[in-house]
Amino acid sequence: MKQATIIGLGMIGTSLGLALRRLPSPPRVIGTDSQFDAAQRAGRLKAVDRAERRLEDAVSGSDLVIIATPVGAVREVLRTIAPVLSQGSVVTDTGSTKRQVVYSAGELLPSTIAFVGGHPMAGRLTSGVAEPDANLFAGTVYCLTPSSSTPPDAVSAVANMVRQIGAQPYFLDPEEHDGLVAGISHLPYVVSATLMRVLAGQQGWREMSDLAAGGFDSMTRLAAHDPDMFADIVKSNSDNVSRQLSLLIDALTSTRDRLAAGETDLVGELRAANSLRVEWERQREKSK
Amino acid sequence: MKQATIIGLGMIGTSLGLALRRLPSPPRVIGTDSQFDAAQRAGRLKAVDRAERRLEDAVSGSDLVIIATPVGAVREVLRTIAPVLSQGSVVTDTGSTKRQVVYSAGELLPSTIAFVGGHPMAGRLTSGVAEPDANLFAGTVYCLTPSSSTPPDAVSAVANMVRQIGAQPYFLDPEEHDGLVAGISHLPYVVSATLMRVLAGQQGWREMSDLAAGGFDSMTRLAAHDPDMFADIVKSNSDNVSRQLSLLIDALTSTRDRLAAGETDLVGELRAANSLRVEWERQREKSK
Repeated sequence: MKQATIIGLGMIGTSLGLALRRLPSPPRVIGTDSQFDAAQRAGRLKAVDRAERRLEDAVSGSDLVIIATPVGAVREVLRTIAPVLSQGSVVTDTGSTKRQVVYSAGELLPSTIAFVGGHPMAGRLTSGVAEPDANLFAGTVYCLTPSSSTPPDAVSAVANMVRQIGAQPYFLDPEEHDGLVAGISHLPYVVSATLMRVLAGQQGWREMSDLAAGGFDSMTRLAAHDPDMFADIVKSNSDNVSRQLSLLIDALTSTRDRLAAGETDLVGELRAANSLRVEWERQREKSK
Repeated sequence: MKQATIIGLGMIGTSLGLALRRLPSPPRVIGTDSQFDAAQRAGRLKAVDRAERRLEDAVSGSDLVIIATPVGAVREVLRTIAPVLSQGSVVTDTGSTKRQVVYSAGELLPSTIAFVGGHPMAGRLTSGVAEPDANLFAGTVYCLTPSSSTPPDAVSAVANMVRQIGAQPYFLDPEEHDGLVAGISHLPYVVSATLMRVLAGQQGWREMSDLAAGGFDSMTRLAAHDPDMFADIVKSNSDNVSRQLSLLIDALTSTRDRLAAGETDLVGELRAANSLRVEWERQREKSK
């Protein structure tokens, strides 16, 4: 890889630039963002060698193009860059859902350009302004969703880039990816936001907020994340999110009904949840 | 206060002992626990001046008796100590719900003994073995639920103890307390446990657990808490927990129905949740 272009210089795109430029044999990194001050900031942080205003100028001559915009913007980016991509270049993205993006790439890119969908599982839980970080991806899982027709060389190129920045490639197909992240990521976010609204919408909220401690803090922290970005993600995965919500609603309703019927001992289900969570922690420690 | 007895030497009871013994003019602290090795451990940690095996011996001669057992055990403790409490002594507890405890105290204690229900909002989010800490209560809110018939001297005695250990007394009645904590504490816990069960009960759980990152971690952390203790708490507050669950189920169902009907843009409700959470954080910072 001699030259990489990063389109979209938010947290993920800028951190990718920093990680790539720190490699032993770094590629030249060209960056662009629809808000040019974001690209200039990436330049100041030395996350890019050069910032370009126009998408067409940014992708010119690059072997690897990484689209790190919000997921809802990827289709328009693909349409714009399709005619000007270099022969044999590889395109990837970092969006949180993969079906729509992979479909758009198949439709819009010429057959000489390979697309490998990507999704770094590197989100950090912060509600404030987080600093881009070359180590953001170290030790994390990075989903890749090539299709059976994706050229193996293109898959290798993106997988190598993923390994070079310290992450672990995790291959799965776009349908499977979107089903899994609906459960593990989008459902928790929607639940956190809904819990926040339900509690703050009650008469006793003023007193509740005085008493709120660690449990409330932990369970509503996700609600502080960028709501526009998450609305965009949910929109692109609404069937799976709806299905996951139904599963949770059913389980909560079953618990509510038991309590309302006077079966007030939840120790069985609380112990089950405890064992599952402790086991997950144990596995996570082991894999570190 | 010359002598205090702490009944129940878990995290809260032992931390209380450490905090009391560190005061400029510390009371003598007597500790007891149904598991005597817990009392011996408290002795080794210097959280108590003396450990007693029998409840009756532990409360003898104390001005203040603090019941820090699980909430389901308080009634039996009150029944046992009622005949042997010193004239004019004050009894308080640290249970997470207050209606049952206050009712039991009114029924079981002689009229010469004052009871002031208490609930330190000092839980720490940890799934491992946490160490008792003299500073556990510093800067936290400590609920007190005296009734209109509680002697003002008794209320002052407990409120002073609360201030001395660095916490802030927060007065409310037992009914109000239990309604508020059902929302701010018990609902989040039940939701965390249910989310954990719903995700781990799915076919894709093995892959989901590989992909799980910060959002999942934050939203299921509560499920790692002591399930027996929480089952005990929910049992003593099942009407309020059931009502809170219904409110959350209604809100989640409304979101699910909108997604299922193709109204996939949740940006309005996600922005509302974001604003509410950010505002709570702002208020919390201000009050520090």
